[in-house]
Amino acid sequence: MRIEIICTGDEVLTGKITNTNFSYMAQKLEDAGLSVHWGTTVGDDREALLTAFQLAAGRADAVIVNGGLGPTVDDLSQEVAAQAAGVELVLHEAWLARMQDFFARRMRAMPPNNVKQAMLPATAEMLDNPVGTACGFALDIGKARFFFTPGVPRELKRMLEEQVIPRILARSGAPASIYLKRFHSYGLGESHVDQLLTGVEALDPDGGVKLGFRAHYPQLETKLTVRGTDMDDVRRKLAPVTAEVRKRLGNFIVAEDDETLEGVTLAALTALGATLTLVETFTAGQIAARIAHLSGAETVFRHGTVSRHLDHLFGVALPRESDQDTTEAVARAAREQTNATHALAVLVELDEGADRIDFGGTIWIGISTAERTAFRRSRILGGREWVRLGAVELALDCLRRFLEGLPVVERIDFEKV
Amino acid sequence: MRIEIICTGDEVLTGKITNTNFSYMAQKLEDAGLSVHWGTTVGDDREALLTAFQLAAGRADAVIVNGGLGPTVDDLSQEVAAQAAGVELVLHEAWLARMQDFFARRMRAMPPNNVKQAMLPATAEMLDNPVGTACGFALDIGKARFFFTPGVPRELKRMLEEQVIPRILARSGAPASIYLKRFHSYGLGESHVDQLLTGVEALDPDGGVKLGFRAHYPQLETKLTVRGTDMDDVRRKLAPVTAEVRKRLGNFIVAEDDETLEGVTLAALTALGATLTLVETFTAGQIAARIAHLSGAETVFRHGTVSRHLDHLFGVALPRESDQDTTEAVARAAREQTNATHALAVLVELDEGADRIDFGGTIWIGISTAERTAFRRSRILGGREWVRLGAVELALDCLRRFLEGLPVVERIDFEKV
Repeated sequence: MRIEIICTGDEVLTGKITNTNFSYMAQKLEDAGLSVHWGTTVGDDREALLTAFQLAAGRADAVIVNGGLGPTVDDLSQEVAAQAAGVELVLHEAWLARMQDFFARRMRAMPPNNVKQAMLPATAEMLDNPVGTACGFALDIGKARFFFTPGVPRELKRMLEEQVIPRILARSGAPASIYLKRFHSYGLGESHVDQLLTGVEALDPDGGVKLGFRAHYPQLETKLTVRGTDMDDVRRKLAPVTAEVRKRLGNFIVAEDDETLEGVTLAALTALGATLTLVETFTAGQIAARIAHLSGAETVFRHGTVSRHLDHLFGVALPRESDQDTTEAVARAAREQTNATHALAVLVELDEGADRIDFGGTIWIGISTAERTAFRRSRILGGREWVRLGAVELALDCLRRFLEGLPVVERIDFEKV
Repeated sequence: MRIEIICTGDEVLTGKITNTNFSYMAQKLEDAGLSVHWGTTVGDDREALLTAFQLAAGRADAVIVNGGLGPTVDDLSQEVAAQAAGVELVLHEAWLARMQDFFARRMRAMPPNNVKQAMLPATAEMLDNPVGTACGFALDIGKARFFFTPGVPRELKRMLEEQVIPRILARSGAPASIYLKRFHSYGLGESHVDQLLTGVEALDPDGGVKLGFRAHYPQLETKLTVRGTDMDDVRRKLAPVTAEVRKRLGNFIVAEDDETLEGVTLAALTALGATLTLVETFTAGQIAARIAHLSGAETVFRHGTVSRHLDHLFGVALPRESDQDTTEAVARAAREQTNATHALAVLVELDEGADRIDFGGTIWIGISTAERTAFRRSRILGGREWVRLGAVELALDCLRRFLEGLPVVERIDFEKV
């Protein structure tokens, strides 16, 4: 099954906006076990669009076209699609009615130029857009099935998942059920995780499980794409592989699927009825910024402090070089003085010198509750930004480990020993 | 002059990484008065690469190819370029020596497979890469001049600016000097600024000035691309337009060129020998995270507080609904208790209800010094994230205005009155 993507629009072609729709579509197709073979980007230009459609029609089995379905004169997708397919544009009465209803429910009259969005090539199949006025459509051009989708990301996402991918899967003869299981880990590099997971795909002897990765430093996403005849089959294939991945990556898995490290940490605090105080220095509010705005944080997040004047913190005198006692004392004092059940203190000492790839920093993490204290020291190299990103993630992960009863000190790939 | 871009690599084609190199290149070309006509994305696949090169060679005058210059077997650009041009690969002795030197200075032996990076098509002109081991090269395929560039963004940027764009400009016969002037504004939407700047291009009667925009909500970047016969000519053309843009956008310009809002604010505080204290609620440390980590902030940024338990802040009792007196009292108390010269307090009250597009919040901003106090109240709609982004930007901008002696209260397009 050869699939191509054509992205249209002057804003994308001139780089005015970064084309995140392309990577989104390509990933979603990969997650469904499909692959993109070719990508084309053209502007709002009749001749370029026609050439792009014709070239793709001659090479591909399925083509996803993104953008150009709006109401304005520079939105040309329907018109050029009709031309490429050699058919007329006709009014799609049902979609026109849907649009009129859309405007009526918002107490507005439909502008006349929106009628254009209901003009579809005569041979097209309409693709529903439940969240906008640009309907999509599918039609044959040459030997390929074309799927036209809106450029607005929110509208594209719904249509791709609900309308386009199921149709492409049906044409590809792939099994009916596909499921994507995701693990988010922190502390292990991609090649390390790849090596740790050697052979897990083979736990499904039918070859229905495919392993993949996506790195978002400092986290890594491990993806299992599972194909089966139905969801029961998928679950049967997935269960032993999921168990094995959890066993092999162990404490390094910070979250699964749509969960996040900060979400898991907040949930653990909420479950304990806990309140949290943060103390930050060079991380400069970035730890607070990950957790304090979340829904539910208003009852958990008691207090955050950012200080770059490192003489005293919560009455604790800071020596010239940090040590374990100072870090723990700051965490304890912050917890007591802000009446929180938990405190996390993250002190960072940057090296001297220029901000280069070998520039580093030392990170001192203290966690305090009424019952116990935990401490972690780490060295991270890679420039100021890298040290800061690393310190934020390491601190949140230490708190997660503390709350989950896991060891707070465990060697990670990103630190210098 | 017809220009195409070909991006290569499985990681880009599968969406594993978002293709920011494409938009970067397209913008840099636009800034130089050049336009991209067509973009192609293909994987690390010999046949696809050859087809892409041949198609572009038949259509374009200049083609920029990005990626595939690495030392591993899946890096195919040199090899397929030679095939498309019908020439052999030959060892480029000078680049080999440069690479050997590169490794020697790092006390490492050059791995044998790096030799591959010095194998260039026989007819190629080498393009220098001062920051990596992948040299670029230019050669003719069909009627087009091809420019091969590395995929690593940092290496691409240097080579594009220093090697590729000057060569394309020389071929296009465009004037020798091109300059890009940028203004960053906050508070006015793109169409509003476009309307305010009507006619400024005409201040250069030769048509050498081109106006453009790039929106990064909540900021807007206004760009003037100026072409002249030399830099004196550029300066002469630019001066009246720059003065006019500054006059028309006035207080809304937060920074120019490579400056940022937070950098300008930090510089103003530094110039005063001032120290800063921040108090945040729903913005959750995101204001601190913009400014407290910057170089130089260690002497200016005294203290940041994030609280989501809104009963007391610095001893000030918070009423159920915020008011001007409370906000100003919090700023004053925070300044006094942390021994800072300046305090910025940003209280946010979210509306009740679900997080939808019409969900909003009220923002209360107080600024305090020993001599004076400033206050700003604003309403922003658009969902939780939108309110938070808006509150962070509005607060930083109020502080900038305060420090620059401009009115802190001035109507912006993004607020609901």
